[in-house]
Amino acid sequence: MAAFSSAAHCCRSYSSSFIPSSSSSSSSSSSSPSLHGQFQCIAVYSTSRRFIAAKVSLQSQSLSHDNVVRTQDVGLDAAVATTVSPIENETPFKKFKDGLVSVTSLEEQKEAAGIDAYGNESTVSITVVGASGDLAKKKIFPALFALYYEGFLPKHFTVYGYARSKMTDAELRNMVSRTLTCRIDQRENCGEKMEQFLKRCFYHSGQYDTQENFAELDKKLKEHEAGRVSNRLFYLSIPPNIFIDAVRCASLSASSGNGWTRVIVEKPFGRDSESSAALTKALKQYLAEDQIFRIDHYLGKELVENLSVLRFSNLIFEPLWSRQYIRNVQLIFSEDFGTEGRGGYFDNYGIIRDIMQNHLLQILALFAMETPVSLDAEDIRNEKVKVLRSMRPLQLENMVVGQYKSHTKGGVTYPAYTDDKTVPKGSLTPTFAAAALFIDNARWDGVPFLMKAGKALHNKSAEIRVQFRHVPGNLYNKNFGTDLDQATNELVIRVQPDEAIYLKINNKVPGLGMRLDRSNLNLHYAARYSKEIPDAYERLLLDAIEGERRLFIRSDELDAAWSLFTPVLKELEEKKIIPEYYPYGSRGPVGAHYLAAKYKVRWGDVGAEQ
Amino acid sequence: MAAFSSAAHCCRSYSSSFIPSSSSSSSSSSSSPSLHGQFQCIAVYSTSRRFIAAKVSLQSQSLSHDNVVRTQDVGLDAAVATTVSPIENETPFKKFKDGLVSVTSLEEQKEAAGIDAYGNESTVSITVVGASGDLAKKKIFPALFALYYEGFLPKHFTVYGYARSKMTDAELRNMVSRTLTCRIDQRENCGEKMEQFLKRCFYHSGQYDTQENFAELDKKLKEHEAGRVSNRLFYLSIPPNIFIDAVRCASLSASSGNGWTRVIVEKPFGRDSESSAALTKALKQYLAEDQIFRIDHYLGKELVENLSVLRFSNLIFEPLWSRQYIRNVQLIFSEDFGTEGRGGYFDNYGIIRDIMQNHLLQILALFAMETPVSLDAEDIRNEKVKVLRSMRPLQLENMVVGQYKSHTKGGVTYPAYTDDKTVPKGSLTPTFAAAALFIDNARWDGVPFLMKAGKALHNKSAEIRVQFRHVPGNLYNKNFGTDLDQATNELVIRVQPDEAIYLKINNKVPGLGMRLDRSNLNLHYAARYSKEIPDAYERLLLDAIEGERRLFIRSDELDAAWSLFTPVLKELEEKKIIPEYYPYGSRGPVGAHYLAAKYKVRWGDVGAEQ
Repeated sequence: MAAFSSAAHCCRSYSSSFIPSSSSSSSSSSSSPSLHGQFQCIAVYSTSRRFIAAKVSLQSQSLSHDNVVRTQDVGLDAAVATTVSPIENETPFKKFKDGLVSVTSLEEQKEAAGIDAYGNESTVSITVVGASGDLAKKKIFPALFALYYEGFLPKHFTVYGYARSKMTDAELRNMVSRTLTCRIDQRENCGEKMEQFLKRCFYHSGQYDTQENFAELDKKLKEHEAGRVSNRLFYLSIPPNIFIDAVRCASLSASSGNGWTRVIVEKPFGRDSESSAALTKALKQYLAEDQIFRIDHYLGKELVENLSVLRFSNLIFEPLWSRQYIRNVQLIFSEDFGTEGRGGYFDNYGIIRDIMQNHLLQILALFAMETPVSLDAEDIRNEKVKVLRSMRPLQLENMVVGQYKSHTKGGVTYPAYTDDKTVPKGSLTPTFAAAALFIDNARWDGVPFLMKAGKALHNKSAEIRVQFRHVPGNLYNKNFGTDLDQATNELVIRVQPDEAIYLKINNKVPGLGMRLDRSNLNLHYAARYSKEIPDAYERLLLDAIEGERRLFIRSDELDAAWSLFTPVLKELEEKKIIPEYYPYGSRGPVGAHYLAAKYKVRWGDVGAEQ
Repeated sequence: MAAFSSAAHCCRSYSSSFIPSSSSSSSSSSSSPSLHGQFQCIAVYSTSRRFIAAKVSLQSQSLSHDNVVRTQDVGLDAAVATTVSPIENETPFKKFKDGLVSVTSLEEQKEAAGIDAYGNESTVSITVVGASGDLAKKKIFPALFALYYEGFLPKHFTVYGYARSKMTDAELRNMVSRTLTCRIDQRENCGEKMEQFLKRCFYHSGQYDTQENFAELDKKLKEHEAGRVSNRLFYLSIPPNIFIDAVRCASLSASSGNGWTRVIVEKPFGRDSESSAALTKALKQYLAEDQIFRIDHYLGKELVENLSVLRFSNLIFEPLWSRQYIRNVQLIFSEDFGTEGRGGYFDNYGIIRDIMQNHLLQILALFAMETPVSLDAEDIRNEKVKVLRSMRPLQLENMVVGQYKSHTKGGVTYPAYTDDKTVPKGSLTPTFAAAALFIDNARWDGVPFLMKAGKALHNKSAEIRVQFRHVPGNLYNKNFGTDLDQATNELVIRVQPDEAIYLKINNKVPGLGMRLDRSNLNLHYAARYSKEIPDAYERLLLDAIEGERRLFIRSDELDAAWSLFTPVLKELEEKKIIPEYYPYGSRGPVGAHYLAAKYKVRWGDVGAEQ
């Protein structure tokens, strides 16, 4: 029984075979028949898994430890196990799940892949709590539509918008329809698909802290579910102060009775170790760990997903992936706009909490972790926790904070951060930060990991830069002038915009001399792949529906991440450290260069050569 | 005194500083002022070096060992030393030279760089022996013109065509002018430049084995030299059976009296160890080792020149450059045409002698050698000899030979090799060969080096392919289907046509699944560098004029190269091994695949993915 779900799961993730580059763009399911095939395949998967989930969950209420072992012996794998936790019976299930590892063989998976007879029996209801908010409109509904358009959603699904304002289904559909776009490479029948999608969208008005309102929602969901196995995903797109109330209400009044119930929560996950721990504790009153999907949308980005592929499926990188060859690693995030009248939320958090402690640190952990036992979520998350726990808590002296000030350029005056009406006068909240972090383990001892994040800078970008060491005893040193740093190899993974991977190498300039320069071995996604790259939210929503936790943050990861930043955050606030002011649209505080210089690093993103 | 020549030498080769990629194309001397500067610089160099050479050579006739040491102490470097060997006094000079190493410091070089007062005192006369031949017309004269056009030739230079046919200077100029082309990126004043160049071209008719004719040439050369220091370069573009005669005559009757005399010889350098040794012995009756410039024009190719830069100036490659990470190396040469009525010469040699034993083996040696002490010619050639001497002589069972047969395609019938009128009926001469070679040293033990060379194949190309090992414990193995070889990293250095370096890496296909494919980290020269890549002959001629021996083959290298191939060549001929016939325009004999398979290799150039 377990075997199906793994096999079906393969449709999307694992069994797809190696595609030679020459055929990749045409073969990636852009033609109508293969699209169809994929749709069916996913439908099999999700519905069959749901079906199994239902069966298992009904059994699991009376499972003893002996039962668990027996079930494991017959090949029930972790992927199924993690989908079968109804809220009501958390503890026995948790034991059950913790004891399991993936034991289904590839053969079993294949054997089961043909079975889709139970395909019609389960449903997924996706409730967007906070449906009238910006994120919902800009990201969540469009991502859901894209998944639907590409055939990734199960046959029976319903999307519910939930918010306080009064709105009819038609009004919601109207609101949603304005933000939907069709994939550039697959515009066919887009209007029709859109209509079909909107028909599955409904609205329910209610308070976030009122169980009755969620009970009404539950009733409506049940109507749609029509007696099938019910799986429910709640996306909490609401301010942090009402998280717990909404979780409580959803859990107590709108959980699935016979399928799974999962909740996606967005940052902020607290402001520091204590508030984060309190939030987790509160969430766990109502949800099991495996029901909580903490989203970090950076983890859904294509090139972040590709980081592990690059490292672990290519021979050439892993031997170089250590202190022996890597001189420093840089994680750089920049936005070319400020808070623009929406500084209220930001001011309470600042750039360190908003970008560094989560997005950049998550990428760092993926970059620096040891090789996991497998690609399973728990194995990857275990390694991430390990590397985070090997890190030194950030010190104030390894940190530079900045805040943008007003700047006039070409007759246009750009506002200072504190000009934002929603920002308290005299706020010291950093809109820029640079930090040097260190991992005290065998692989990375002494290698500075530099982070830099800022708003209102000269460009918009997110990238990982790996600077390799100088060549020992370099025969060509005299060809490089005085700054050897300029001559070192650098691997750049540009996460956004304009995704690319490039490796800077030294090369002879063609001609009769012996001039060297640095050229790029370049993989530019737009040139290589004709397919549009999916938005991070699509991937993450689909993963949540499929119960794939690899890209979501586990509680212990979150704790470890906060431990690194909490002391310095407190110190910054207690000591009221004045940020270094930098002009709107500039490259940020000069202090970031001095911090880098302290560790013999040169930022790779600043200079003639990008 | 020695200091100048090194410093001036820097102008072309060493002191040019590191150029950031953003400015490289514009800064590479394409503008008129810098072109001018470079011209002057070279003029200083070659003329000043000549001047020194003259002085030293006059002294060196009475040098005792003590003198040598003293001269070395004052900083006379090897580069000068190797230019001062007049034919007459070979032995004392050889001792002198062998004891020298490069001792001038960068400071000394810089100090001396300004001195160009003696600039007008020396001349270079380049005599193309065999001036009416194809190579001379197609390659040598155009290369000389390109060097002149770009300002690389010294102020006083003369080009002499020497051949048996009667021709006036005007006729030679007319013949030469038809093959000259101007660089696409520097067409300015090309016609004018061409005229100036042609004015420096003269013709002398004479037999190749008649000293008197060379004495007449000597007289004419002296007129042009007008009492300046005389440096003479003879390019022997003549059949091998008259090499020695021409060398004898040139040496005895047309050597420089007060400067250097150098002779460029082209392959074939014998047919096997014995004939090659005999040829070398005969040459050395008239020339010192350092007067002999054995040309292998593959070594002048841009990407072969770049091989050492790639390896030794980039951190990322050298750690991977061994049996630990490299699974096999492939050296592939193919031509898409046959002998086309010119099989007479070829039939006596065959593809193994014509391509493998020299071009491909030279590239292999550069690829596989240990890090040299420096980039000086002798250091590099020492390492090449070492790696050649570590190789196992080729075995017949590690060899596949082929010969093309007639083939009709699209109504056109392409001839068989033996249809060529100049080829003896029933010839068994291989037009294709594949071989597996092994280097029995610590770095390469067990790594197959596969070579493949052929005529009348489906394409024209020369490339080096480095296939890396499989990833141990690859987490993504199941994404790769059954053939892991298709998933390994590969570094491809495409020497011709359309120069490029690319590194095949496994990459996630963008999208919601986890499909992997192989993409290229790519450096395509045409896209990156706007400058035209100089012809190999330009580089090699300039090097010969400058006395830079790095890209020429030393006698002991040649001996080592022949030792590897002589036994199998004899065996092939003695056993009259029948070649495997392959259709004109095909991918060559299937046997090459079986040879590769025997060593668990898959040719990288055949298949959907190039």
